[in-house]
Amino acid sequence: MTAVPHRAENDRSEALKSAMRLLGERAKAASERLAMTDRATKDKALLAMADAIGSRAQEIRAANKIDMDEAKAKGVSSALLDRLALDARRIEAMALGLRDIAGLADPVGRVLGEWRRPNGLVISRVAVPLGVIGVIYESRPNVTADAGGLCLKSGNAVILRAGSESWRSSGAIVAALQSGLCAAGLPETTIQMTPSQDREAVGILLSMNDAIDVIVPRGGRGLIERVVAQSRIPVIMHLDGLCHTYVDGAADPAKARAIVLNAKMRRTGICGATETLLVDRNAASLLPILIEDLLQAGCEVRGDAASQACDGRVVAATPKDWDTEYLDAIISLAVVDGVDGAIAHIRAHGSKHTEAIVTEDARTGERFLREVDAAIVMWNASTQFADGAEFGMGAEIGIATGKLHARGPVGLEQLTIYKYMVRGDGQTRP
Amino acid sequence: MTAVPHRAENDRSEALKSAMRLLGERAKAASERLAMTDRATKDKALLAMADAIGSRAQEIRAANKIDMDEAKAKGVSSALLDRLALDARRIEAMALGLRDIAGLADPVGRVLGEWRRPNGLVISRVAVPLGVIGVIYESRPNVTADAGGLCLKSGNAVILRAGSESWRSSGAIVAALQSGLCAAGLPETTIQMTPSQDREAVGILLSMNDAIDVIVPRGGRGLIERVVAQSRIPVIMHLDGLCHTYVDGAADPAKARAIVLNAKMRRTGICGATETLLVDRNAASLLPILIEDLLQAGCEVRGDAASQACDGRVVAATPKDWDTEYLDAIISLAVVDGVDGAIAHIRAHGSKHTEAIVTEDARTGERFLREVDAAIVMWNASTQFADGAEFGMGAEIGIATGKLHARGPVGLEQLTIYKYMVRGDGQTRP
Repeated sequence: MTAVPHRAENDRSEALKSAMRLLGERAKAASERLAMTDRATKDKALLAMADAIGSRAQEIRAANKIDMDEAKAKGVSSALLDRLALDARRIEAMALGLRDIAGLADPVGRVLGEWRRPNGLVISRVAVPLGVIGVIYESRPNVTADAGGLCLKSGNAVILRAGSESWRSSGAIVAALQSGLCAAGLPETTIQMTPSQDREAVGILLSMNDAIDVIVPRGGRGLIERVVAQSRIPVIMHLDGLCHTYVDGAADPAKARAIVLNAKMRRTGICGATETLLVDRNAASLLPILIEDLLQAGCEVRGDAASQACDGRVVAATPKDWDTEYLDAIISLAVVDGVDGAIAHIRAHGSKHTEAIVTEDARTGERFLREVDAAIVMWNASTQFADGAEFGMGAEIGIATGKLHARGPVGLEQLTIYKYMVRGDGQTRP
Repeated sequence: MTAVPHRAENDRSEALKSAMRLLGERAKAASERLAMTDRATKDKALLAMADAIGSRAQEIRAANKIDMDEAKAKGVSSALLDRLALDARRIEAMALGLRDIAGLADPVGRVLGEWRRPNGLVISRVAVPLGVIGVIYESRPNVTADAGGLCLKSGNAVILRAGSESWRSSGAIVAALQSGLCAAGLPETTIQMTPSQDREAVGILLSMNDAIDVIVPRGGRGLIERVVAQSRIPVIMHLDGLCHTYVDGAADPAKARAIVLNAKMRRTGICGATETLLVDRNAASLLPILIEDLLQAGCEVRGDAASQACDGRVVAATPKDWDTEYLDAIISLAVVDGVDGAIAHIRAHGSKHTEAIVTEDARTGERFLREVDAAIVMWNASTQFADGAEFGMGAEIGIATGKLHARGPVGLEQLTIYKYMVRGDGQTRP
């Protein structure tokens, strides 16, 4: 038998539930309006939002200072403090991001296909917004502006659930975004925050499948696993970015060296960073050079027996290493039997995010592209290109590794779905 | 405290779990093979499957007779018996369906987009299969062949869970399909049935998110609600087809009469049948004619006060009627204030399946198409066209009303997703 909760707690819980219900209803109403809004109005709002971020920079920094002070008092990690901090440059970057989104094409209303049936019916598949998007994130306050801007441009309303550390910063940013919406004559309820930092709010949000069409979690693996486990709403996300770079026996040595170093070390903390290097047994002469390059760059190398035999500074990899996304200056290294061995290793350990091959042999390259099952497969390029902007899609709200709806960078187009418009002249079905 | 289950029951449950796990592993292995299989081989298999259905018609009918006898002994409804029965014509139709699928274009490998970045990277978005599809259905044995054929052609493996009534019929059909796969050199495990009629098998299936990429339920609302509530795997489905036809004041009377009759009465039991007729207050002269047509055709009309005032034979609609999918010769009828009233009624009561307007006014027609949020919106056509074959998409595995991945008829293209292939020449990210 569970303890009977205190009446005050029950009341608070009921109040939160009804506040969340209202939030959902308002978001839904806003989304219906947004779906009918033309590009000019949405872009006007985006520019006004950018202006408001600029003109309210003081307030945003003041709110951020409170968040920072509280976080410091709690003794959070310096990495978290860095993600949380908003300086003039970062605030300017948020405004710039919104202006960039205004410059992108409107994904709504695109005619994705159109054909005429023998009976004269004309069928068009036309892009429409998803509806209401719930974004759950942690300590980066800039997600507030990015997600708000992308959802608005794609005709969606958004409910934001900021992490408790960035609560005040996010609130100040949302206030700026809402004043921009207001200036363009759009409902402020297009971009809303959950009314409470209460953890219970997340649970309620994830159960609101009548009001919310898709959930996008942004943060660490722990957050995403919790969201996936709890949600009654479809989730667009990736859990891991355990990316591999395979150097084939037919690789160009200079390309291989440049790509491996860049794929691992350019930025080690992003999901497109390579975590495991696979080297063809036939690339024996290249193996010591690749190891030397990585060690020189300050990367720890954890290898199998063959790579340890090649260089004594290679640490022994444990079975767990092949399944670990380090997000750090560490790489696991295995010698494999050609492209077959590489594909088998990736099948066993990959996270279906981004996988790359380096080879001058076109047949091997094309085979890798075709046979490896991942959102992004690359031939002679660094896995660090796994990014919406690098793909030319503009900003992205995340990267997806699921099999439904969207794979790879989730940009404006991926925040839409379609409906069929059928135009007839009185046709009836025989 | 729950009773401790009997040890034999525990053993049985464990045996089922491990059989299901094996099923999933085999399906996954088959799907990897299928993804790399060319069109010619898949079509060869489809034709061999059709031949096998034909040559094994005796066995299939014998199995069906056992199902039918058992169902009759249980005293099931005549509607269910009709769905369950397989005669020579229906068996021939299954074989024909497989031949039709062989004639459709291969949805795998389509280049959905391709562009070159300033740094020389060439990015292609290429259609790939979803992987493994779980299909859960009830008493129609022909779903076995349809689903098997569509999944194969789209490069997916499928796990079928037939209803207990059609268990033997479905098993005989699967045996024929597998012999066709074998004749084409494809793994028989491309099309598998769950090993047990046990209800527990459904629960296990819906938890196998490592092995199965999407679930497609085919059957009544009860089945679909259970599947959605239980599944840890994304589900492609529609719950209701509560379709409306709105007759505008500017409708052509002859078109309106033909469309309304066809939309309601051509077949009353399909999800694209119109369930509610909305008539513009400005179409007063048309209202009694539409009512007369429906009554003449044997349709019960349940109306609001205005339509009852128009014709005494109209029964009073209760609030529940506006939310009821009759799937029968019954229609609800409301008089509304123009297209605004129609859109408001549909927003309140529609199921986002198929909605139609009849009008000669192009502005009103286009507005309806734009503003009504449904998978399919139609202007001057019968809602009974809501069907993959009628759309020219070939066979469909179902109709989807969700917001992610696919909306409307789910045909071969909708059983694929894409991956990005990136071809470079040694590019690294600055």
